[in-house]
Amino acid sequence: MDTNLGLYFVSELIGTAMLLLLGGGVVANVALTKTKGNAGGFLLVNFGWGLAVFAGVIVSQYSGAQLNPAVSVGLLITGAIGAAQFFVAIAAQLVGAIIGAVLVFLAYKKHFDEEPDPATKLGVFSTGPGIRSAGWNLVTEIIATFVLVFVILGFGAGKLGEGVNLGALGALAVALLVVGIGASLGGPTGYAINPARDLGPRIAHAILPIKGKGTSDWGYSWIPVVGPLIGGAIAGIAAPLLTLG
Amino acid sequence: MDTNLGLYFVSELIGTAMLLLLGGGVVANVALTKTKGNAGGFLLVNFGWGLAVFAGVIVSQYSGAQLNPAVSVGLLITGAIGAAQFFVAIAAQLVGAIIGAVLVFLAYKKHFDEEPDPATKLGVFSTGPGIRSAGWNLVTEIIATFVLVFVILGFGAGKLGEGVNLGALGALAVALLVVGIGASLGGPTGYAINPARDLGPRIAHAILPIKGKGTSDWGYSWIPVVGPLIGGAIAGIAAPLLTLG
Amino acid sequence: MDTNLGLYFVSELIGTAMLLLLGGGVVANVALTKTKGNAGGFLLVNFGWGLAVFAGVIVSQYSGAQLNPAVSVGLLITGAIGAAQFFVAIAAQLVGAIIGAVLVFLAYKKHFDEEPDPATKLGVFSTGPGIRSAGWNLVTEIIATFVLVFVILGFGAGKLGEGVNLGALGALAVALLVVGIGASLGGPTGYAINPARDLGPRIAHAILPIKGKGTSDWGYSWIPVVGPLIGGAIAGIAAPLLTLG
Amino acid sequence: MDTNLGLYFVSELIGTAMLLLLGGGVVANVALTKTKGNAGGFLLVNFGWGLAVFAGVIVSQYSGAQLNPAVSVGLLITGAIGAAQFFVAIAAQLVGAIIGAVLVFLAYKKHFDEEPDPATKLGVFSTGPGIRSAGWNLVTEIIATFVLVFVILGFGAGKLGEGVNLGALGALAVALLVVGIGASLGGPTGYAINPARDLGPRIAHAILPIKGKGTSDWGYSWIPVVGPLIGGAIAGIAAPLLTLG
Repeated sequence: MDTNLGLYFVSELIGTAMLLLLGGGVVANVALTKTKGNAGGFLLVNFGWGLAVFAGVIVSQYSGAQLNPAVSVGLLITGAIGAAQFFVAIAAQLVGAIIGAVLVFLAYKKHFDEEPDPATKLGVFSTGPGIRSAGWNLVTEIIATFVLVFVILGFGAGKLGEGVNLGALGALAVALLVVGIGASLGGPTGYAINPARDLGPRIAHAILPIKGKGTSDWGYSWIPVVGPLIGGAIAGIAAPLLTLG
Repeated sequence: MDTNLGLYFVSELIGTAMLLLLGGGVVANVALTKTKGNAGGFLLVNFGWGLAVFAGVIVSQYSGAQLNPAVSVGLLITGAIGAAQFFVAIAAQLVGAIIGAVLVFLAYKKHFDEEPDPATKLGVFSTGPGIRSAGWNLVTEIIATFVLVFVILGFGAGKLGEGVNLGALGALAVALLVVGIGASLGGPTGYAINPARDLGPRIAHAILPIKGKGTSDWGYSWIPVVGPLIGGAIAGIAAPLLTLG
Repeated sequence: MDTNLGLYFVSELIGTAMLLLLGGGVVANVALTKTKGNAGGFLLVNFGWGLAVFAGVIVSQYSGAQLNPAVSVGLLITGAIGAAQFFVAIAAQLVGAIIGAVLVFLAYKKHFDEEPDPATKLGVFSTGPGIRSAGWNLVTEIIATFVLVFVILGFGAGKLGEGVNLGALGALAVALLVVGIGASLGGPTGYAINPARDLGPRIAHAILPIKGKGTSDWGYSWIPVVGPLIGGAIAGIAAPLLTLG
Repeated sequence: MDTNLGLYFVSELIGTAMLLLLGGGVVANVALTKTKGNAGGFLLVNFGWGLAVFAGVIVSQYSGAQLNPAVSVGLLITGAIGAAQFFVAIAAQLVGAIIGAVLVFLAYKKHFDEEPDPATKLGVFSTGPGIRSAGWNLVTEIIATFVLVFVILGFGAGKLGEGVNLGALGALAVALLVVGIGASLGGPTGYAINPARDLGPRIAHAILPIKGKGTSDWGYSWIPVVGPLIGGAIAGIAAPLLTLG
């Protein structure tokens, strides 16, 4: 396929901005003070993130809606995309994630203003572990992202025979997968499973004039970048297991 | 297409009445006293509204199930509908929304009678903000409605290649989108994202003989009308981003 | 189509037994003591009933999976089925509902034994109102069942062009509709919306040797029979609104 | 079909490992201390298990994604698979389930370390009854597994005319079925409905160096093996009821 890298960039940027707007939004809704969904529960968060993926995939069709450097790594390894597409995609994903986080800040501006807890504010942007442990947190992110990328590659493999971007049904499948990964493997680290999803908003948190904000917790920031990249790479290497026979 | 504007009116009216009956109904169920779903949580509200859209789309096929002046504005801007269809649609939507709200009142009549709080009663009909701020509430409604209309336009664009009204799968896609927007962006204002959805029931609230009712809060009423119209218009203008390449 | 009424009976019986097994089961899970899902919330009940419909439709394909006298009334009025099929279907539905309720009793036997509250036990079998009022309870059941049957008829009408029983997607559509009706209109009466669903299990409750059971509340029993039949009939009459143009 | 039994083994192993990783994971998330989803509710558990099936089916296409000896028994009885395939499948399922459980342990390692209650730790691996009663617990598992296998056989029968493994839609159908069975029939025993799902992780629990672990409750372990096998066999025998006419 003859890809226009400029349009490729725009497509990934729009999709990832949409992903982060709805994904960050549901955390804001559940966590910040005086919202309608305050303390709405973890399943609400899981559905919010899953449907954020759904919306992001729909508006990012030109580039195949990768929206995640870990997915792009997997596609690079399987040969589905080339190096140029890979680097353009992850740059766009990072910029898009920052934009999405800024939009969440605008949509929930008054609730950020009235929220007293700095850690809660950071939690709307980036993930943090339930129990801090660099090694085990990394293991969790690797496993969860492996599941994400391996199953996504499975949508396009074997009898299924259809790429994940073939339509609303493919978008729904990825959305449900993300609901499931969040429910099942989001417990220890809050399931970044996407370097852009975590790093972009963390940069936004550091830059934005958020009233009473605290640290951006840069000491943890490498784990939700490195872990997902490793998990996505393993999934790309393991992809032949999906096309047995 | 040769459109009969009378049938167009009926179709939009039926669909929007269905939308408001089920949408207002879930708020009544969660908010009013002595219901089975009392205090059932925000995710219950989100699914109720999403599936209200699902049902509304199914019964409003003739007119393409716009059900929302913000969607109609987006379609007008992209050229999918003309001015006559636009004005007929929004008139039908407003009348349908009033009818739907009246049906909610009838279905929950005894629970309205026994509910002591006037603000809770109004909340079954129309939205209100968690933190009152005309400017920021407007921003939230613009962003949330932009997402709604932009993604809906995406269902019919690019590789997806199918209109949103092609069948039960299209209805499901819009339903899930509304679940997601509610979960993620409904926190600050209760996601009107539809002028008819808010204004129609507010008129019903003002007219209906609701025992012990309070103000209809007309001071806020322009925000869930103007915000969604702006958001829908921006989405219509941004629609070319959905068909890159 | 050349219908074998004996097979028709078996098909409706199997489907309705499945519906009541899973539908009654979720109420048992949420309501009875010492279950895993105790106090699991109204959305859990809504999904349980919706997916009970899903399973019931899958195993009742021969007869078109009506599973509900209110649906059969609607189909009779629109001419989709004849009088012989109608009477065979509702007889099968009633017997199937009793069988399903007995299976729930067996699956939750020990939890019925240890549950102290007789009203809670009855609630696993049949519906009861949040606020008792024959007239308004009837209105609620009429409205909710109208929505059920009208939208089901919509699945097979107009552009959708497909019958509700065409496959797993049709089953999913009805399931989601029932989740939505439960969430939105189940608040006042617990959404019987099906005479067989309520009367069959009430008979089972009266007959079964349930430890410490109380009244079967026969004074209320006519409302979830008459209301749904009226609602289904109105939907059948209103069906032409679904095929405008 | 010419089946390579080695690839068949690999396919079932991968799918069942995925099933247990996500299925055990959601229980860990809800049950263990200091997780993000702690006390997240039974519906969260139900969706986690349902979407675990979804992911497992996607990555196990070569063997038709049985993932469950009770399903394999049903397919053996209906003649869909032969004896060689059956024995290879259940061996792979057991090994896969152990691997999945080990991955859950790794993903939640720190939370196992800090969890004080041994019974909670076992609950992440294997099921246990709300009220202990060998006979009635067996009845519940038989009924619930019958529903699972009977409806799965229904996906490939009659008008539906499509096998359950035809694509993402088939995977979704089974996933929703498992959400429903969990919600409705999971109350008494925690719905093993799969001998490998319960026995494999119980073996893992006995072997793994889990800090402060207690008994593996072997006295109960035969029920979630025997019950599902009986239920699956009955479903296989009853399968002709799905193809009436």
